[in-house]
This record gives sequence, C-alpha cells and structure tokens, in this order.
Amino acid sequence: MAKSKKKNLPVILVTNDDSITAPGIRALVEAVKDLGRVVVVAPDKPQSGMGHAITIGHPLRLHKVHFIDGVEAYSCSGTPVDCVKIAVDKILHRKPDICLSGINHGANHSINVIYSGTMSAAIEAAIESVPSAGFSLLDLSVDADFTASKVYVKKIVEQMLKQKLHKHLTLNVNIPAVDETLIRGIKICKQAYAKYEEDFIERNDPHGKKYYWLTGEFVNFDKGKDTDVWALKNNYVSIVPVQFDLTNYTLKKQIENKWKF
Amino acid sequence: MAKSKKKNLPVILVTNDDSITAPGIRALVEAVKDLGRVVVVAPDKPQSGMGHAITIGHPLRLHKVHFIDGVEAYSCSGTPVDCVKIAVDKILHRKPDICLSGINHGANHSINVIYSGTMSAAIEAAIESVPSAGFSLLDLSVDADFTASKVYVKKIVEQMLKQKLHKHLTLNVNIPAVDETLIRGIKICKQAYAKYEEDFIERNDPHGKKYYWLTGEFVNFDKGKDTDVWALKNNYVSIVPVQFDLTNYTLKKQIENKWKF
Repeated sequence: MAKSKKKNLPVILVTNDDSITAPGIRALVEAVKDLGRVVVVAPDKPQSGMGHAITIGHPLRLHKVHFIDGVEAYSCSGTPVDCVKIAVDKILHRKPDICLSGINHGANHSINVIYSGTMSAAIEAAIESVPSAGFSLLDLSVDADFTASKVYVKKIVEQMLKQKLHKHLTLNVNIPAVDETLIRGIKICKQAYAKYEEDFIERNDPHGKKYYWLTGEFVNFDKGKDTDVWALKNNYVSIVPVQFDLTNYTLKKQIENKWKF
Repeated sequence: MAKSKKKNLPVILVTNDDSITAPGIRALVEAVKDLGRVVVVAPDKPQSGMGHAITIGHPLRLHKVHFIDGVEAYSCSGTPVDCVKIAVDKILHRKPDICLSGINHGANHSINVIYSGTMSAAIEAAIESVPSAGFSLLDLSVDADFTASKVYVKKIVEQMLKQKLHKHLTLNVNIPAVDETLIRGIKICKQAYAKYEEDFIERNDPHGKKYYWLTGEFVNFDKGKDTDVWALKNNYVSIVPVQFDLTNYTLKKQIENKWKF
C-alpha cells in the first residue's frame, strides 16, 4: 500500500521480547499489516523474562532497519518496555492507536504474565493510554508454526479496531500449539493461579566455584474452568484482560478493619 | 543473640534492589533484626527499574558476605526476583516466614510499583506463598536519613508477625522523607493512577551517532484522597496491599458481553 493511502489508517505499534529477528514478530506484522500503518520498534536482542524492566543506568540506541517491504522498522538496544516508551516519544511523536506485542515464542498464560517482556510492553502501552494486546504461541521453538496464530491475531485485532476500547485495555492472548482445525474458538478468561516450583541447577566452573542455572517446573494450582490454563488445555485461544492497578482491594479492607498501629 | 536462641524465631528473608551495599538495606535489617532470624540475599549491584525481570540466559553467582554481626548474608549476581527464588531453593531450603524488601532509596508509590525491583522481589515472595512487604523512603540520596523509616518499618513488621497473614499478602509501604515528628501516622491506600511523561534526551556520541537517555516527569492524574500519593503528600506512611492476579474482571465481563468473534 502506498504511504499516502495509509494516512487515515490507524497507527499500529508492534514490538516483542524475542527481538526484531524472531519469526514471531514477522508473523504478527504479516497478520495485521493491511489493517493500518504498522511501525515496528523491537529489541535488538532476546529479552525474554525481562518483565517490566526499564533502562536507567545507560543510554539507548535506535537503528532503522529493513524488516518487511513497506513497513517502517527500528531495532532498539533496550528492553521491551523501553521500546514502547521510545517509540512514542522519538519515532511516532504521537500515541499509536493500538500497540501489539509478540507473537511470543512460548506461553504467557497464568503467572507468566508477570515475568513476560511481551506482556510488559503491552501493559506499558496501556499505562500510556494506548489499548494493547500481547500474543503468545505455546511453542518455544524458533521454527514454530504461526499459521493458526496469524488467523486468530487478525480476528482479534479486527475486533479491537471495531470496538470502542477502554484506553487502558490490555489483552493477554495465548494460542494453543495445534493445527487451526483443532482450535475450538476464543475464550475470555481469568489468569490461572499457577507458578513455577524453582529448582536451581548447581554446577562447578573450571576453577571449582559454584554457579546456578534457574530452572523450574510449572505447577497449576487453579482447578477452575474459567482460567487461561484450562482454556488452552482444551484447545481454545485464551484472552485475559489485564490491568496495572495492583491494589488488592479485598485485603485493603481487611487490613483497615483489623490491623492496629 | 546466639544462634540457638533464634531457632524458634520467625525466619525473615531480606532483599532489595539497590544492592547489598546500599544504606537502605542496612537500615531495614537494623530495624527488624531482633524480631526473628534475619537472612539477607541481595543483588551485588544496583538493580533499580528491573521490575519483575529474571535471569534465564546466563547462570547466577552467590557469595557469602559480611554484613552486620550475627546476620547471615549473601550477595547474588541476579535480579531482585532471582534473589528471592535462589534464597528459598539454595540458602534457606524452606520458605521464610516473611520476606522484606528495601528500604528503597526513592519512591515506589503509584505506577512505580510496576517498574520497581524492590516491589517485584516482594511480589515474588507472595507468589511463593510467603507474605511480604516492600519499603521505600521518598529520598533518592545515598545519604538519606532512615531514622523515621526504621521506626515505621519495625511497627509494620511487628504487626505482620502478630496477625494471621494471607499467604499472598504483599504490602507496598512508602515513607515520606520528613522528620519522624512530622509523620501523621499510617494510611491504608489504593495505588494512585499516575505515570511518567517520557522525555528521552538525545545526544551525539563522539562519532556523531545518536543515543538516548530515558527521563520523565511524574504526573499524578488521580485526585482521590484514598491514594498513596495523597497520603504521602500529607505526611502519612502509605500502605497499599498489592496482588499478582492481573485479571481486569470489569473489562472481562464487558468483553464477554460485547465482543463477537
């Protein structure tokens, strides 16, 4: 599409945490590039597990790069959250209409939302009053098949562009790693209470000093059928709307009533 | 106190994000060291703004260090969240009774909770079913005066040890940077809706290439008198109970009712 024709189209900022070279972000852009003016600002190296980290101790670099013909793209030396901040301030010079993050190689359901750079970038957009969505495919492989993901990403983004969105909307979308024909639809869910049971692997370096690798086993404590983990297990695409107000209002009331200082 | 006498005392895990050498963590340990068996596991370098980042791409180091006489202490090469994970798995070999993080040099009220390594460490403990609190003094200086902070930290931790705590309890405690005599008490609050208006400072390196420093101005959009920002402005210590279920239940219902896929 020629640039002039794109003037009235919505501006879609795209980022991720697996870096600008990951197949997942390419699949995301391919899925939505006809729905608006897509601008990509993504990390120049993998940033998985960076959560909501920002870079304050050193400066950032930004490079215009070739990505897909007709799509403006930049790599950034910072975290996914940095990418969103710098895109708005230094590249777009305005708020995009929506921000999309992903498609992540690997699950971001349940507690993963809190460690995920993909989801933190989407949440950052929502803090900036830009409605957003993060997309993840339950396949860690660099050779993951994004065919079904692209269909569902497009469906969801079309809906986002059609609805009047809450300015702080963030959707956490996870897609099961199965053939499109096996996907049973989309379920709006709550975040399952699940966590990783940590198990650091201890090794000795050649000088006899210990070092530790973080590993962990995923454990789902949540037996509900309204959770993202349940939906994915049953071959639904899960959508959890997430928020950045972390106040626990139930405990707030309890503490107000019971604690004495 | 001799080690044997501490056997039945609660185990208190202490961490922070300003690193094990920061005056703030020393003030925290001094405030609570008579309330239990304190074990310190904190980053070996400043980790401000690290949010909920974890280290997955390289291994961690752990060093036993001298901290305060009678207090077991370790520095860790990872993030604040890594410190909590490795402390439970490799140092304590059990869950501590409570986890305390801080005292942070600088505010963690309102949206700061999301970028804060201090608060992410506390939230990580809560995910592990260890009740926790993060403490922050509204003074960024390395020479900050923690006298009043120590009094309020002790008051709050005594209360935590007295009450039957929800296993996922996390308190975000902020302390105004004023003399103890000026503090009007403790207020249980909600997280204010406030954010940073980003402004990246653009500079040229000696080779003529641009680089960018993240800066931003804090803007409070929340005019309520029930927020942490209001309480701190009015010289109260603010406590916001925070949660790690990010589901936005209000938007969940709206989307279920309105969106058609």
